[in-house]
Amino acid sequence: MARRKNVVVAQSGGPSPVINNSLRGIVEAARDFDTLGTVYGARHGIEGVLKEELIDLSAQSAEEISLLRYTPAAGSIGTCRYKLKPPQTEDFERVIEVFKAHDIGYFLYIGGNDSMDTANKIAQLAHDRGLDLVAVGVPKTIDNDVGDSEFKLVDHTPGFGSTAKYWVHAIQNANEENAGSSPADPVLVLQAMGRKIGFIPAAARLADPNRELPLLIYLAECARSIEQITEEVNALLSQRGRAIVVISEGFDLGDLGEVRDSFGHTSFSASQTTVAQKLVNHLNQVGLSVKGAARCNVPGTDQRHSMAYASTVDLEEAYRSGQKATELAANGESGYMATILRNSGVIYSARYDRVPLPEVAGADRKFPAAWIAESGYDVTDAFVAYANPLIGDGMVSLPMIGGRQRLAKIQPILAEKKLAPYVPQADR
Amino acid sequence: MARRKNVVVAQSGGPSPVINNSLRGIVEAARDFDTLGTVYGARHGIEGVLKEELIDLSAQSAEEISLLRYTPAAGSIGTCRYKLKPPQTEDFERVIEVFKAHDIGYFLYIGGNDSMDTANKIAQLAHDRGLDLVAVGVPKTIDNDVGDSEFKLVDHTPGFGSTAKYWVHAIQNANEENAGSSPADPVLVLQAMGRKIGFIPAAARLADPNRELPLLIYLAECARSIEQITEEVNALLSQRGRAIVVISEGFDLGDLGEVRDSFGHTSFSASQTTVAQKLVNHLNQVGLSVKGAARCNVPGTDQRHSMAYASTVDLEEAYRSGQKATELAANGESGYMATILRNSGVIYSARYDRVPLPEVAGADRKFPAAWIAESGYDVTDAFVAYANPLIGDGMVSLPMIGGRQRLAKIQPILAEKKLAPYVPQADR
Repeated sequence: MARRKNVVVAQSGGPSPVINNSLRGIVEAARDFDTLGTVYGARHGIEGVLKEELIDLSAQSAEEISLLRYTPAAGSIGTCRYKLKPPQTEDFERVIEVFKAHDIGYFLYIGGNDSMDTANKIAQLAHDRGLDLVAVGVPKTIDNDVGDSEFKLVDHTPGFGSTAKYWVHAIQNANEENAGSSPADPVLVLQAMGRKIGFIPAAARLADPNRELPLLIYLAECARSIEQITEEVNALLSQRGRAIVVISEGFDLGDLGEVRDSFGHTSFSASQTTVAQKLVNHLNQVGLSVKGAARCNVPGTDQRHSMAYASTVDLEEAYRSGQKATELAANGESGYMATILRNSGVIYSARYDRVPLPEVAGADRKFPAAWIAESGYDVTDAFVAYANPLIGDGMVSLPMIGGRQRLAKIQPILAEKKLAPYVPQADR
Repeated sequence: MARRKNVVVAQSGGPSPVINNSLRGIVEAARDFDTLGTVYGARHGIEGVLKEELIDLSAQSAEEISLLRYTPAAGSIGTCRYKLKPPQTEDFERVIEVFKAHDIGYFLYIGGNDSMDTANKIAQLAHDRGLDLVAVGVPKTIDNDVGDSEFKLVDHTPGFGSTAKYWVHAIQNANEENAGSSPADPVLVLQAMGRKIGFIPAAARLADPNRELPLLIYLAECARSIEQITEEVNALLSQRGRAIVVISEGFDLGDLGEVRDSFGHTSFSASQTTVAQKLVNHLNQVGLSVKGAARCNVPGTDQRHSMAYASTVDLEEAYRSGQKATELAANGESGYMATILRNSGVIYSARYDRVPLPEVAGADRKFPAAWIAESGYDVTDAFVAYANPLIGDGMVSLPMIGGRQRLAKIQPILAEKKLAPYVPQADR
């Protein structure tokens, strides 16, 4: 048997309602493997490794770890958007140094494509430096943009199902609002996350698979002018008297005053205006085909931390992905990501497997063109068939106390620092 | 016993998660009174009366009426922002004509101050025209701005408790987001509804009654410049590394390109920009005291139709308000609003009573100045003591089917039209 070594778990990128359940899957599964020692959570992802800020997750109470299931986002150990400076540089060397100092033999990275790339590079460098490090990835992103467009590397990522379910509720409830308030506010525009990829706005269709609602869905993939959208909205208004419009935050309606994060990704939520606001302003300026005004909701991060809407299927899969990654790690299978693959058959079921990190890091998933409806403002039944099982069949039961959610309280029990302080390269 | 006459129920203004439960309370209670005949729902409020569009609610299945409990907003019969033209004019006469034609003896109006005023005027005119009409109001508004500032006419309005509970979840979950993502996005600004009155943004404090979170709450009542807010945010950032900022949609940060509805109220959701966006842009322009960017969520109508967050106390009170109004109507007590009054004592309990419509219509509730903290960016424990019981102690159990909410389906069974078509004055 391999000798017992400690584990570091880190999270990267935007959180999800179920990211903590992957973390829980890792912490709880690690107890079952003798080769896995203390599980540390790197505070704020890889930045916590660089700064030697390692939260002892093995020292937390079992109850608090269990409550991670009902705790959204990444508040427990934090996430980051820190991009490690190019390999062979100080940041990477520092990671290896910290791992050596804390007898880390296992590195589990929860994140998207960029994280899988980072995990892979760390594993390679560790090997070069003679450190016996097993690096394993755990998939995570509400955008569902990890892996390939044929869904062979990973069928979907934990987080997407819950955000999809958020949109089911958002559309169903917004439809009651819009139906009731349409004499004053006949157009309700809702802005969906997902950057430039359409899985999240597409999920709005799951609220109305039989296409009974006056619903238009604009994915960033379907370019059209604001004038064309206005025509389509007004045509629907003339027909139905009201309209619900879902539009991707990444839809190209011209300059939004965007800012970029350290990965070079556009941070739409920090832009000077939003796609939804631009559309509403245009609609109200040129005028609707019926009386009343257009209005918009930009729910932003609510989409990725509304715990009440978490999908039970997504929670389960997030947990099992964490478990699977822990098993891969314990088996010494470095350089892989735990993955979720869909079994064939009419009734949905999934299996857990592994895929090489470089394949995931090199993949570039697109929203399948075949799933975009001919109209350009809807998705097809094939998308519904793909995504519908992921929202689950009911509501999660949130533990409550005093009228508030009972969230996990992870104590700041930090590993003793053994190295000199270090300023991450990007912070200098 | 008075002779049996039919009932018209109408809704006005913005909806709430529990408005349909008041409607249900009326429909279900009406079955118990022999003097109450068919209950009609006016489609889109008073506009439906003018247009003689009366939905037969007594003809709906008991199951669908029962499902109104779990159906948010006002999609079932609709609401309106139609302001009846001044009394003694055609609109008012038309209302009386329609009521006569359909043997309406009871008019129940679910709404805020403006609706209570309208209900009162209709009752008076009916009396002048020799129609034996009983008009009763049912309180409703998420803004909690009905009645007086001493809470003697009505302690709180159905709808507020659920929107307050929405904010408890929003802040708790946003705090997990902000704690996790703060290295990239240290400032999360959340825009609250409530126009110019502070009850809704104040409810954010219920998520954190012990003041442990880095939370700033800006009510419209507490004027300050954007520069001062920036200073306060940056001071908190320097201290805690992150900040959650709740700001009222009606906070005065200068021109938003507002539009107004037919009551002359500003429709903030249709403005060209938002308070939250303005603040975020300013923060990002002048720079934060820590690394990273400010972002914002503008959840808009989600605050008044997120059924999963409905307060069980609010649901109960909305139902009982509807019941009480029906009882008042059946007893012939015209010119009153059913009201909720708080019993004295440490443990919260409420009783149901009546208040004269003119008193409600003439009242002008303010957010109590004594409940605003000295800092100007918080509320006091007295507000928490007032509002905390209204959020209830747990989650509502939503009926689900196929992964979607099972919402009430009110059939468009319309009363036969007996009058010539009529174009409401404002539509001419």
